[in-house]
Amino acid sequence: MIRVRFLGTAASRPTVGRNVSGIAVQREGDSILLDCGEGTQRQIMRFGSGFSFSHIFITHGHADHFLGLPGLLRTMGLQGREEPMTIHGPGATVELLRTAVRMGIERLAFPVEVRGLRHGDRIGFDGWAMHAYDVDHGVPALGYALVEELRLGRFDVEMARRLGVPEGPLFGRLHRGEAVEVDGRTITPDEVVGPRRPGRKVVYTGDTRPARTTAEMAMGADLLIHDATFGQEEKKRAWETRHSTAAEAAQVAARAKVKRLVLTHLSARYADSPKVLEEQARAIFPASVVARDGLEIEIGYRA
Amino acid sequence: MIRVRFLGTAASRPTVGRNVSGIAVQREGDSILLDCGEGTQRQIMRFGSGFSFSHIFITHGHADHFLGLPGLLRTMGLQGREEPMTIHGPGATVELLRTAVRMGIERLAFPVEVRGLRHGDRIGFDGWAMHAYDVDHGVPALGYALVEELRLGRFDVEMARRLGVPEGPLFGRLHRGEAVEVDGRTITPDEVVGPRRPGRKVVYTGDTRPARTTAEMAMGADLLIHDATFGQEEKKRAWETRHSTAAEAAQVAARAKVKRLVLTHLSARYADSPKVLEEQARAIFPASVVARDGLEIEIGYRA
Repeated sequence: MIRVRFLGTAASRPTVGRNVSGIAVQREGDSILLDCGEGTQRQIMRFGSGFSFSHIFITHGHADHFLGLPGLLRTMGLQGREEPMTIHGPGATVELLRTAVRMGIERLAFPVEVRGLRHGDRIGFDGWAMHAYDVDHGVPALGYALVEELRLGRFDVEMARRLGVPEGPLFGRLHRGEAVEVDGRTITPDEVVGPRRPGRKVVYTGDTRPARTTAEMAMGADLLIHDATFGQEEKKRAWETRHSTAAEAAQVAARAKVKRLVLTHLSARYADSPKVLEEQARAIFPASVVARDGLEIEIGYRA
Repeated sequence: MIRVRFLGTAASRPTVGRNVSGIAVQREGDSILLDCGEGTQRQIMRFGSGFSFSHIFITHGHADHFLGLPGLLRTMGLQGREEPMTIHGPGATVELLRTAVRMGIERLAFPVEVRGLRHGDRIGFDGWAMHAYDVDHGVPALGYALVEELRLGRFDVEMARRLGVPEGPLFGRLHRGEAVEVDGRTITPDEVVGPRRPGRKVVYTGDTRPARTTAEMAMGADLLIHDATFGQEEKKRAWETRHSTAAEAAQVAARAKVKRLVLTHLSARYADSPKVLEEQARAIFPASVVARDGLEIEIGYRA
């Protein structure tokens, strides 16, 4: 299961009901955090999403996307954390992030590394990788795509039995691509295993205008989380501030043929009445929802 | 009326129910903020205490007391603020506070000045002053005392009438200390105005061991807001970390003969069950309460 928990869904400044940007993502044993606005640590406590992140990915150097770092790291230290933490961000933000990490913290009991990323970089994890790609926000800004490795093909248990393969370790060896001997006969994987299946994909744009790079990276994604700061009536303002409208986010989702679109980073004026954004998006891409703080989305394996 | 609003009452790290340090104080036209931990701007929104602070007083450079500054200032800028802001802190924290103020903010539309204070400094306002004094926290740390000027003496309306003074402007001139002529006779202020009366006093310690300086500064105060991070059972830990227990805070309050004591900066272990701290304090100083986020205390004029 991949679990995506929205910790903050407001643009620029918080409102009573929405904190600034932060998304917790969990995939099997891995926990990561996408952006870390002020107050993220308290949102984590409120929604019980846990502090076991090994990596934090910051999209860009605007205050509402990283000011929660020093407080979060300090609290992790007070909790006795010893595991290292890696913080990633666009190369141009490394100095800023390093300053933030040191701010008001006498010493951290665990190692913290800040790494600069650029378009095309790929951070490998167990069974998946995080891909960084350029978005269009007028400042150095990255979107991130969690991309699973190809899954093993479907194992045809009936066929394996018919071929006389005894249930047990030989099933696993065949499934992982190894030929096995049964009664002096060689059984090859292609006899019992289907073609490898694509893994899941979750893409987070951070702040951006609608971008070709997002449409490409999100092609066929299970979930696209897209900037939707404004509604159609503020199209011009979205263009000026290098953000997207809900409709523009929906156009990207449609073009990329994603399964689901979640709109986030809402301007304060939509904080209490986000329905209009959802309607504008759904007119273009029906599988759209507006995020709210605390929203959890689970992404199961594809059929 | 002086209004004291507790925005955050947790020590070191927030809990679900308590944010880190922040106190809004309003006296007539003046609004100030005492400490500004991460998330303070959102607490201000939640409790509706307003963003019109002209001055922020930071007690010391630990993260939970100032990390809310950059986000707060950025939000004020987004709100169109143009009025200048002065941020005060111990001299040793000036560079740190200046770094925080600049962090993640491209430009501020209003001037922000960071000023270093030391023991004995006094910042004058209209009718009151803020006094900075040294506390004992193992790092450069100041407590702050809001001290009103002496109030005018009580005006004896009956006596003024008996002396033939007509109601109107002459009353005010006498009250402010001016002699007036009535039917060729001189009436002097001491005939109708009592002795000047002390103003109100509110003292906030920030983080500290119980200190002689606090007892002196808080002598006769209407309100003492004191560090009470721990209960009696963690007396040793309070000593080691340069904080106070609830009982120690109560001893200072008793010694200073204050009218009311509010305990704040609670360790997470007391966040949901602060009653024990209140009991330990009340055994020594009955007029003690434990702060909670959102608590508002109004201090009227003395009789």
